[in-house]
Amino acid sequence: MPFSNVRKVRIEWSHCDPAGIVFYPRYFELFDAATAALFERATGMTMLQMFRAFNSAGYPLARTRARFVRPTRYGDDVTIESVVALGRASFDVAHHITRNGMSCVECSETRVWVIQDPADPARYRSQPIPETIRLRFGA
Amino acid sequence: MPFSNVRKVRIEWSHCDPAGIVFYPRYFELFDAATAALFERATGMTMLQMFRAFNSAGYPLARTRARFVRPTRYGDDVTIESVVALGRASFDVAHHITRNGMSCVECSETRVWVIQDPADPARYRSQPIPETIRLRFGA
Amino acid sequence: MPFSNVRKVRIEWSHCDPAGIVFYPRYFELFDAATAALFERATGMTMLQMFRAFNSAGYPLARTRARFVRPTRYGDDVTIESVVALGRASFDVAHHITRNGMSCVECSETRVWVIQDPADPARYRSQPIPETIRLRFGA
Amino acid sequence: MPFSNVRKVRIEWSHCDPAGIVFYPRYFELFDAATAALFERATGMTMLQMFRAFNSAGYPLARTRARFVRPTRYGDDVTIESVVALGRASFDVAHHITRNGMSCVECSETRVWVIQDPADPARYRSQPIPETIRLRFGA
Repeated sequence: MPFSNVRKVRIEWSHCDPAGIVFYPRYFELFDAATAALFERATGMTMLQMFRAFNSAGYPLARTRARFVRPTRYGDDVTIESVVALGRASFDVAHHITRNGMSCVECSETRVWVIQDPADPARYRSQPIPETIRLRFGA
Repeated sequence: MPFSNVRKVRIEWSHCDPAGIVFYPRYFELFDAATAALFERATGMTMLQMFRAFNSAGYPLARTRARFVRPTRYGDDVTIESVVALGRASFDVAHHITRNGMSCVECSETRVWVIQDPADPARYRSQPIPETIRLRFGA
Repeated sequence: MPFSNVRKVRIEWSHCDPAGIVFYPRYFELFDAATAALFERATGMTMLQMFRAFNSAGYPLARTRARFVRPTRYGDDVTIESVVALGRASFDVAHHITRNGMSCVECSETRVWVIQDPADPARYRSQPIPETIRLRFGA
Repeated sequence: MPFSNVRKVRIEWSHCDPAGIVFYPRYFELFDAATAALFERATGMTMLQMFRAFNSAGYPLARTRARFVRPTRYGDDVTIESVVALGRASFDVAHHITRNGMSCVECSETRVWVIQDPADPARYRSQPIPETIRLRFGA
């Protein structure tokens, strides 16, 4: 069964634009934090602690796509469900924002697990996701 | 020939994260502004002036997808080229960020031209893009 | 005794800059939300519900000042304590961010309670803070 | 005569909130960029190039205060004038945002020139502003 995490988020004034709805780049801030929360729940470490523990240089975003079904507004209490699917050196996360059970935003992202290139510390190389992390995700 | 616009943008400190690169939600702020600039160049009106002039309620984002090829950093001077393709009641914009001619981020978005529903001002309805705007885009 | 509210906030990746610390404008986003939370706790209404209920046009910020004592970083769990002092038509809020009991940021802000000017809806006029709200704050 | 810099800035959709005006934390993003621009104009280097050139660890903000006189809105073209006053190891910058010559926001900030503590690289120490930079500012 895929590993998932659910967060309740209050839509803040700072998220919203003059149309009174969430300014869509703010959703990506929420998704980025949701992915961090997913790993934190699986590993018991914050993202930076995890990167240090596994000598990783991070999990930069390679691709994202999103579909905006219904707007959300200041004061809305929304739910973000995030489901991870691990590949060998990359992983996908599907995020779904709902309000009162109604779909508002769907997003899927692909990230790559990277280390610093030993030959050139200014460059990154993709690297298999560590086995310990795979186990934490039940993969 | 499709209508396009080119902007030069300096990557600011506020765009960047502890990895020293642009925090990806900030790219969507740049893309949102690039779409507004595209319409402003075509119509000679700011986005809000245009919406008022055509009795529109806006052009909400329906879908976006992006691919992150190379990171950009504080102090980088990047170019955003935006190309529009008009449909009947929706339009696509392809944004391309380059630095020194090298591709960094590619994005495509789909937006819908909407008006307030006369039967229910709290709702929006898609509406054909006004002919005057089509002409300004050479469509 | 002055009315106060305490929030626990996790410092997110989106708050931080290439120096690895919170980019200071993000503190003001946290303070703005803390003021909204203070009123929500006192009145049981979200900020917009309260403005509607009292026919108010908002409580725009007139002045703010902040002192940055210690930086905070990604993953820090900080506490924001906010204390309100009501004037007749304005109010002050003092915000204090601490981490493990150590002072990090101090801020004080002054906001004005306003209504739309009946003679000109495009303008705002300060207005005494409604008695009901004073009572909720124990003032 | 004090060194100053003037920038023209377009208020973007991303700066504005559901009240249709600039969300005040965004002003601090503009002020932060205005201070960077001031140093860039004086030294001919971007902020990070300057910190590297002078072996500095940055100029963290110690204090800021702002007064909000008139709101600004999406599409407004505003002017930010920034004036610097150098102290020995710190400096003040006064920022003033105007629209059509009318005062909108006034801000003053104090920053400290710091280096890494040689005895403990995790700590910073204030340090006299380098003479070369003083000369560039005509001080």
